[in-house]
Amino acid sequence: MALLTLPTAGAISASAATSSSSPSPSSFAIRSLQAAARGGCLHTGERTKPAAGTVWLGNSLYQSNPLTAYIPMASAAAAAASTAVRSSLIEPDGGALVDLVVPPEERAARKAEAAGLPSVGIGAIDLEWVHVISEGWASPLRGFMREEEYLQSLHFNCLRMDDGSVVNMSLPIVLAIGDAEKAAIGDSPDVTLVGPGGDHVAILRGKSPPCGLITWGLDKSHETPCTPRVQIFKHNKEERIARTWGTTAPGLPYVEQVITPAGNWLIGGDLEVLEPIKYNDGLDHYRLSPKQLRKEFDKRGADAVFAFQLRNPVHNGHALLMNDTRRRLLEMGYKNPLLLLHPLGGFTKADDVPLAVRMEQHSKVLEDGVLDPETTIVAIFPSPMHYAGPTEVQWHAKARINAGANFYIVGRDPAGMGHPLEKRDLYDPDHGKKVLRMAPGLEKLNILPFRVAAYDSSAKKMAFFDPSRAKDFLFISGTKLACAFVEQIELELERIWISTV
Amino acid sequence: MALLTLPTAGAISASAATSSSSPSPSSFAIRSLQAAARGGCLHTGERTKPAAGTVWLGNSLYQSNPLTAYIPMASAAAAAASTAVRSSLIEPDGGALVDLVVPPEERAARKAEAAGLPSVGIGAIDLEWVHVISEGWASPLRGFMREEEYLQSLHFNCLRMDDGSVVNMSLPIVLAIGDAEKAAIGDSPDVTLVGPGGDHVAILRGKSPPCGLITWGLDKSHETPCTPRVQIFKHNKEERIARTWGTTAPGLPYVEQVITPAGNWLIGGDLEVLEPIKYNDGLDHYRLSPKQLRKEFDKRGADAVFAFQLRNPVHNGHALLMNDTRRRLLEMGYKNPLLLLHPLGGFTKADDVPLAVRMEQHSKVLEDGVLDPETTIVAIFPSPMHYAGPTEVQWHAKARINAGANFYIVGRDPAGMGHPLEKRDLYDPDHGKKVLRMAPGLEKLNILPFRVAAYDSSAKKMAFFDPSRAKDFLFISGTKLACAFVEQIELELERIWISTV
Repeated sequence: MALLTLPTAGAISASAATSSSSPSPSSFAIRSLQAAARGGCLHTGERTKPAAGTVWLGNSLYQSNPLTAYIPMASAAAAAASTAVRSSLIEPDGGALVDLVVPPEERAARKAEAAGLPSVGIGAIDLEWVHVISEGWASPLRGFMREEEYLQSLHFNCLRMDDGSVVNMSLPIVLAIGDAEKAAIGDSPDVTLVGPGGDHVAILRGKSPPCGLITWGLDKSHETPCTPRVQIFKHNKEERIARTWGTTAPGLPYVEQVITPAGNWLIGGDLEVLEPIKYNDGLDHYRLSPKQLRKEFDKRGADAVFAFQLRNPVHNGHALLMNDTRRRLLEMGYKNPLLLLHPLGGFTKADDVPLAVRMEQHSKVLEDGVLDPETTIVAIFPSPMHYAGPTEVQWHAKARINAGANFYIVGRDPAGMGHPLEKRDLYDPDHGKKVLRMAPGLEKLNILPFRVAAYDSSAKKMAFFDPSRAKDFLFISGTKLACAFVEQIELELERIWISTV
Repeated sequence: MALLTLPTAGAISASAATSSSSPSPSSFAIRSLQAAARGGCLHTGERTKPAAGTVWLGNSLYQSNPLTAYIPMASAAAAAASTAVRSSLIEPDGGALVDLVVPPEERAARKAEAAGLPSVGIGAIDLEWVHVISEGWASPLRGFMREEEYLQSLHFNCLRMDDGSVVNMSLPIVLAIGDAEKAAIGDSPDVTLVGPGGDHVAILRGKSPPCGLITWGLDKSHETPCTPRVQIFKHNKEERIARTWGTTAPGLPYVEQVITPAGNWLIGGDLEVLEPIKYNDGLDHYRLSPKQLRKEFDKRGADAVFAFQLRNPVHNGHALLMNDTRRRLLEMGYKNPLLLLHPLGGFTKADDVPLAVRMEQHSKVLEDGVLDPETTIVAIFPSPMHYAGPTEVQWHAKARINAGANFYIVGRDPAGMGHPLEKRDLYDPDHGKKVLRMAPGLEKLNILPFRVAAYDSSAKKMAFFDPSRAKDFLFISGTKLACAFVEQIELELERIWISTV
């Protein structure tokens, strides 16, 4: 099997960069994957053998990059350009794409300033959020949320703009600090964020809008003035968790990894990011910003972009769906609909397949012509995963609007997982799709429901499920596939584990 | 003290009608109040003596009704009229006030129909919701929520109308049933709701909009068709509680009283209420519908209405605030601003003061001229209490829009309570006010912040708190006052308890 020849460095550093700030990334990655095989997959009671029609790995890693042939502009230099990009397809939320990376000519001065400010240390997942915010995935958000943004996100899943319009914002994108850091910041207007590696990543500033509360009526006396300081407010973890996940049961991966160990304060302000965020894991060329993606879509003359979010290997059921979606869009009269195959690259739970393995598999799918490289762009969505079901799927869709997608394929039980304590799905598998279609701020996005495909044992090929002859269909879900992968990866990793300890 | 001569029948039946379907209301009311003295008040560690400036009870119950002199129209007959009332002050949500009480001439036919339908038994608090929905407090809601309304309420605290406009709807207003009832209903299009007394209260119907999902984009294939049947869907209690209260901690009064014992299904549909809901507790004349209130405001020529929600006795701090609010509205140029003094009359927790006692106290405040009867209307808001803080205060404000109020006074920590397990407030006391001011669908309502008043021991009168001389001020909160009441009520109730058991 391909995995027996899998170069592990990529897998390990990718997994480390996106999952942990552990000083021993390789051992972390190995432990994660061993936990995966022992954990989530065994938990489902399934050890699935490769199913008919499943796409398997090639023999080499990153031998092809489906983008290099098409996007000379999609370079780090282009990413640093500060002009707002407007796609011909769909407006970014708030009208203009946010870009918070300091222009090269100003970096020296900003870095000098950063060295003199009080500092806050951030973890690997906080850094992923800095990345997400800095490239405009969360446009019009310009930094970590202030209280008024946090409360709107928590209660309404959307933010009201000054002009009265509404943008979707379902996940609280916040930065937690402890009492000591709060005291050290004192009255400082600005704060430097220090990355897991000790480098100065960004300056968090208190100035500029949104300021105060968005109020109506006569009395403004209780508005927060437009403060020149970063805003520090209480971090009520219980309320944040309950309103975001709809449960407070122990065992939620993001909660245990990020929220439970976090401080009791949240710090909000505007970000100025000193350098573009890179992971140096051999996958940065897949991490295209919304600006780069929009340029590419325009360059290829796309008149529609349909985005497919996934965090597991692609199987032929997905491929059939994606090809069929393009066919349907052509039938609708679109001349050149492009597919954004957009795996999530941030924090994932231990029993999901590591990013490097998934990227290798995605690239192979294009190599093998299962998907057409000319009408497909594979890129990494840098967000961490919450596993917050109907609340999170709104974030996944909203971020793709900012990248220029005007069609979004929503799966069954998006961003869902099993209940940590009970033998049931945490969310009703249909709620994600229903909530997404009713979500404030997503009216301009076309939601395409996932059509279930499986291996048709009578026709000997993948086909859309026909309930009238259910027994003919052989299902292979992303999770089952992940388990098949993990089972084999584990053998390889056991060998590395022995060689590294 | 007045309470030593308090006729107890009113207090007892009111408490019973609004708090429980216990077969022994009097003993329930007594147990509730004893629990109150032993519970919430002791829990605060305070047994407050009557503070200077506190208004105390008169010597007779209901000797005055501040409305009778003003509203010959506000009768049961008027309540039954089915034409939508539009106030000159502010539009009801959805444009027209919902009125779901069957017109008198059609009642015989509807009752005959109801007798032949499958039935669902409802509790005293469900009946309060039938009352609330039937009079249009929740306009444009026309019945217990269907799944698409439930999900929007839970995730967005608002509902999107067919014309794209948004109305606030922060609390899920739902009816739970069990497996047996679900089976008994089968495919019946309509269901009869049977009250705690065994009477046929209403028909719940499956027809009429809203139907299906509110969707955008091209694909409608997954819409629910406009079903001719009531809609039955899963009741995920954990998710409902977490998203409504921001906690799943045991000890939330509404959860323990209503949700925990409820069935695992929710049934949604349109209501037809067979008779106006009455409680026969000597307080029905205070239960004015939004239609009756709007008529009265128009009749008195109000050009502004400011609503004050409370669930505790009024003290002079409140009175000062209300009089000062009227003064400020006059200064703003309004010619005749009216006060809607609007105590909540539905389910409250055991340690709140019983409704009958509060109504007596409110009426006395008017008798004594502390508030001006000509510019004040005292009425009962029939909703049950959730104690859900920032989520619930939106409901309290939204319902008052439907009653014609265009100004709403929001207090500190509205609808808040202590955390059931931890020694802290369940909600940040400022969040209610902040969330209310940002809430979708409440833009047309003017939010007036509560100005803290206390007894100024130097000026020997109630005055707005001046932090520069904090030590001069003697505070008496509604809760402290409630405890002072309960302490005295308990003595009286001990006597009745002995005489009733």
